[in-house]
Amino acid sequence: MSEPAYTRLQVDERRRRLLELGADLFARHAFDELSMAAIASEAGVSKALLYHYFPSKADFFEATLRQAAEDLAVLTEVDPDLPPIEALAKSLDGFLEYVEQNELAYRKLMQSATSIGEVKSLIAEVRENTAQRLLDRLPPDPPPKVQAAVRAWLWFMDGACLDWLDRRDMQRDELRDLLMGTLMGALMAAGAEPPV
Amino acid sequence: MSEPAYTRLQVDERRRRLLELGADLFARHAFDELSMAAIASEAGVSKALLYHYFPSKADFFEATLRQAAEDLAVLTEVDPDLPPIEALAKSLDGFLEYVEQNELAYRKLMQSATSIGEVKSLIAEVRENTAQRLLDRLPPDPPPKVQAAVRAWLWFMDGACLDWLDRRDMQRDELRDLLMGTLMGALMAAGAEPPV
Repeated sequence: MSEPAYTRLQVDERRRRLLELGADLFARHAFDELSMAAIASEAGVSKALLYHYFPSKADFFEATLRQAAEDLAVLTEVDPDLPPIEALAKSLDGFLEYVEQNELAYRKLMQSATSIGEVKSLIAEVRENTAQRLLDRLPPDPPPKVQAAVRAWLWFMDGACLDWLDRRDMQRDELRDLLMGTLMGALMAAGAEPPV
Repeated sequence: MSEPAYTRLQVDERRRRLLELGADLFARHAFDELSMAAIASEAGVSKALLYHYFPSKADFFEATLRQAAEDLAVLTEVDPDLPPIEALAKSLDGFLEYVEQNELAYRKLMQSATSIGEVKSLIAEVRENTAQRLLDRLPPDPPPKVQAAVRAWLWFMDGACLDWLDRRDMQRDELRDLLMGTLMGALMAAGAEPPV
């Protein structure tokens, strides 16, 4: 019996490494500045192999974004065994840690959020999923006002994060507490019982 | 004694009308789609006259944005004779009325907020001024956390407005109350005395 030249694990692992490198390259360079040839060369693989994984630069870019969104979803997963407030604090800690460690990529993402169609729809999708995860912890069938409060709070979060990256004038824990307190305030203003 | 061919008032008025038309045109068309010739033709003036007022299309575009920002500043002026909460409510009503009446322009502005340099810096400037006006009503020398709360709340406001324009599933008064309540919640979360 002959082994396949590459195992599935190796293929996944290589794809994963290409995506990590891509996230880094796209964060540091403008999309137009990068060529598939340059990316392949940075990755130490042939252009043909890169194209084997990703049919075009746009596909590659989108795949790096999807990967980042997946990583973020895992980091901010809400622990169902914790009380809601603690679960939210933990999830926010995960988010802020990601933002801090991927500052460049996060800024770039926010900056291109409205100009690049794929980024725009991805951010909308992530916001929608995050809003849904938060709403799932509240009593069912929340009125429009409560839904609006949660969705708008995600804007608050991005604004606060960008501001924090710019100024770094408070601790990450302080920012987390500000985010949590504001969500509670927004929910109360919308007439919802905050999760306790 | 001879009168000047155009009085200052006529010049200002014509400039003002060109800016109003420009705001409308830029809201309905992409920047690249519009030419100075087309704008002049829409305005019923000669291209030469349009160039007399605005040296380039980019200057014209920026002037329409500045005018919109000034209009907005007037509409949202905080009445110093009212108690803080009422003054804030009145100012927010002015803002929401503007958003509602200039939906297209507001959406366009937010969408191009990160891709066009001038728009980006104008929005940052408006946010900074608005944050300052709010901070001026609070005890002096607010700590970083309070400043961050106010600035991030302006993101909340834009997020909530865009969401509201998309869905129209609540009354304008409900949105205003949500905005106010969230600001109070954010200020309290930041450890500030909310203005009462």
